[in-house]
Amino acid sequence: MPTRPTTRPSRSWVPMRPDHPFGPQTLPYGSFTGPDSLPHVGVAIGDHILDVTVAWRMLAVTDEDLFAAGSLDRFLAAGPATWSHVRTALIEWLCDASYRESVSPFLLPAHDVSMLLPFTVADYADFYASEHHAANLGRMFRPGSKPLTPNWKHMPIGYHGRAGTVVVSGTPVIRPRGQRRSAAGDVTVGPSLRLDIEAELGFVVGVPTAMGETVALDDFDSHVFGVCLVNDWSARDLQAWEYVPLGPFLGKSFATSVSPWVVPLSALRSARVAPPPRDPKPVPYLDDSQEAAWGLDVRLEVALNGTTISEPGFAQMYWTAAQQLAHMTVNGARLRTGDLFASGTISGPTKDSRGSLIELTWNGLEPLTVPGGRRTFLEDGDEVVITATAPGPAGTRVGLGEVRGTVLPPPAPPARSGAPSAHEGTR
Amino acid sequence: MPTRPTTRPSRSWVPMRPDHPFGPQTLPYGSFTGPDSLPHVGVAIGDHILDVTVAWRMLAVTDEDLFAAGSLDRFLAAGPATWSHVRTALIEWLCDASYRESVSPFLLPAHDVSMLLPFTVADYADFYASEHHAANLGRMFRPGSKPLTPNWKHMPIGYHGRAGTVVVSGTPVIRPRGQRRSAAGDVTVGPSLRLDIEAELGFVVGVPTAMGETVALDDFDSHVFGVCLVNDWSARDLQAWEYVPLGPFLGKSFATSVSPWVVPLSALRSARVAPPPRDPKPVPYLDDSQEAAWGLDVRLEVALNGTTISEPGFAQMYWTAAQQLAHMTVNGARLRTGDLFASGTISGPTKDSRGSLIELTWNGLEPLTVPGGRRTFLEDGDEVVITATAPGPAGTRVGLGEVRGTVLPPPAPPARSGAPSAHEGTR
Repeated sequence: MPTRPTTRPSRSWVPMRPDHPFGPQTLPYGSFTGPDSLPHVGVAIGDHILDVTVAWRMLAVTDEDLFAAGSLDRFLAAGPATWSHVRTALIEWLCDASYRESVSPFLLPAHDVSMLLPFTVADYADFYASEHHAANLGRMFRPGSKPLTPNWKHMPIGYHGRAGTVVVSGTPVIRPRGQRRSAAGDVTVGPSLRLDIEAELGFVVGVPTAMGETVALDDFDSHVFGVCLVNDWSARDLQAWEYVPLGPFLGKSFATSVSPWVVPLSALRSARVAPPPRDPKPVPYLDDSQEAAWGLDVRLEVALNGTTISEPGFAQMYWTAAQQLAHMTVNGARLRTGDLFASGTISGPTKDSRGSLIELTWNGLEPLTVPGGRRTFLEDGDEVVITATAPGPAGTRVGLGEVRGTVLPPPAPPARSGAPSAHEGTR
Repeated sequence: MPTRPTTRPSRSWVPMRPDHPFGPQTLPYGSFTGPDSLPHVGVAIGDHILDVTVAWRMLAVTDEDLFAAGSLDRFLAAGPATWSHVRTALIEWLCDASYRESVSPFLLPAHDVSMLLPFTVADYADFYASEHHAANLGRMFRPGSKPLTPNWKHMPIGYHGRAGTVVVSGTPVIRPRGQRRSAAGDVTVGPSLRLDIEAELGFVVGVPTAMGETVALDDFDSHVFGVCLVNDWSARDLQAWEYVPLGPFLGKSFATSVSPWVVPLSALRSARVAPPPRDPKPVPYLDDSQEAAWGLDVRLEVALNGTTISEPGFAQMYWTAAQQLAHMTVNGARLRTGDLFASGTISGPTKDSRGSLIELTWNGLEPLTVPGGRRTFLEDGDEVVITATAPGPAGTRVGLGEVRGTVLPPPAPPARSGAPSAHEGTR
């Protein structure tokens, strides 16, 4: 387990209910539009946000520009000693009542502020680390083959996604258009008819590496700062038609939503659990059997139009984020501050713990009933909210906040000179 | 064909041989380390570089900060009217002898300067647009199946790569390590034994789009600024083991090299040709049969250790860059300034026009002889140089410069606590 010193959070003088998921055991970082209409860094405490950009300038004795730009970029790059130093200061400010007078002016009611993407996303990669999800999708996408591909238990399978379409929670998601092929073999173009979600955790890289450098399993928390929630929206009809042989592309690239709050790994120490047993034993750079591995007991809840449709548990993921990072760098690919990698859909063994609609409705054959009617895939106007908590110290729960998104219809198809009415046609 | 006004380049007063590929018909943009050790924007003219960062400040009457940051980012975002305005000014400065006295102080000998990555790479996507390459790889990677997947002639197949490992020509390429599986089924970890190249063209996005917006075929040159050369280094053994079902990942992500010079599309007007016939007829958003399509008669040359091993022709690519951009945005994914998308390996129908070693040596069965010995895949110390030219106005050739890279051995494997000597082991 990590051995860095930590200040044990106690109660905060900021008024809140005692079981609040954003108590001083959490202290997640985000970015919001400040009173001056510029981006500010904030830390959530109960139902308030501490304006860290302003507070740090007024109260801190070191590195007063750390949060000046209003995004987490500079803080992420600063590394573990700074992460620890800042967290210690924040716990002191928010838990020691002698700071009440000096810190209170920097607290804003959370419901008054508008949250921003918390950091500049460098590269975005997405993995596929739930055995249950991979096997479910394999059964549906490749019927007649073995559910898992031969490589799946040898390495965390992943791919790069589109960093430019990572958006913060609350951003509407426009239904994508594209090509799909019918069961009869007709290729048509139009709005996706099988728009889905994927409930995932995202891991945010702080400390970069040089070309040729690798990150060993036990260096994970020297590079990764923290965790957010991810909804990896997926157009299953586009994806099914395009993904062989180069992988998912337009079926994923239209939008990926992230929660506004990045929870530091140091808030998740009580959530560390042993990952599931692996068979075969992983190759050495992925073998975490001789150390405290990075299984995390994070429990998610997926709600569609206000009704909980699934409760996936992250603890059952076959590959940990530390293994994913070791794999992503084993070829010497460098990391940059702001790299984001997501776990892949979090699905457990039971039906009510599946993290995507295609699994929950078994490829659309078993509709769900939610407010608004029966659903196989998402309809325009549907709202999806993913929330999560993890065990904190002394019986507390560490909140990961939420990632929320509402589906909007696509704009009208653009008129093409010479073929204005045929755009949606069948070939 | 484009109808924007252009100043017809004539001869330059800068001394150079008359058939120089960087004559005034070309005027490519790059970034270099200036005399003040800071990044400067430069334009190549013959064997010189015009220091545009300094010259623009001294001579231009508008927007004097356009090149101040020393990268192309701001210029790329400025859009077609600015691109045209600047090119007109540069042609005037470099071709009208009355500017000789005022402009000469800003010329530097090209061999004295060190080139930088010319722009900030936002997202990097890579396509697969040569029918010959796709069919060759299909035959090798999926023996017994049809060489082309069923979707291949319906859409330009692509995937996202790692933007953070796009490097400028001249950057050494460290041989990647990773997992591979032997023919007998053993999984081992070690340096790639099948390190390859892919000769490609890259297209650089200038003008961004909003979420939900699409880019029609005839808006291509309103968004794309220009073209560079790309070497998409590929570890075939890593790629073959990992790529099903989510596509290439570590087999590609260790490095992608680009030429330092971005040639504006406006320099390639004389190179536009009709693309090959398509069957079946593409769906409407990809159907370029009723307009001047973006086939480009760019001729490449691939040299290994100084010996030409292939001469691929871009004119035969099945899908054009305009179709790739229309496809990449049909789902509403936004573009950002600095997005880079590459064509995919440029391979023609003949053996001497194949753009990768795996094709040139037919999966290693037919070695090439080059200085340094026989080669199937790359050995440490090997140098690959890709160059290209295209037809310019009045019988000139427009140069695309070169992308160069030398292979370095990987660093020693990191010692792992508990398993220091087993890292390269077989499982």
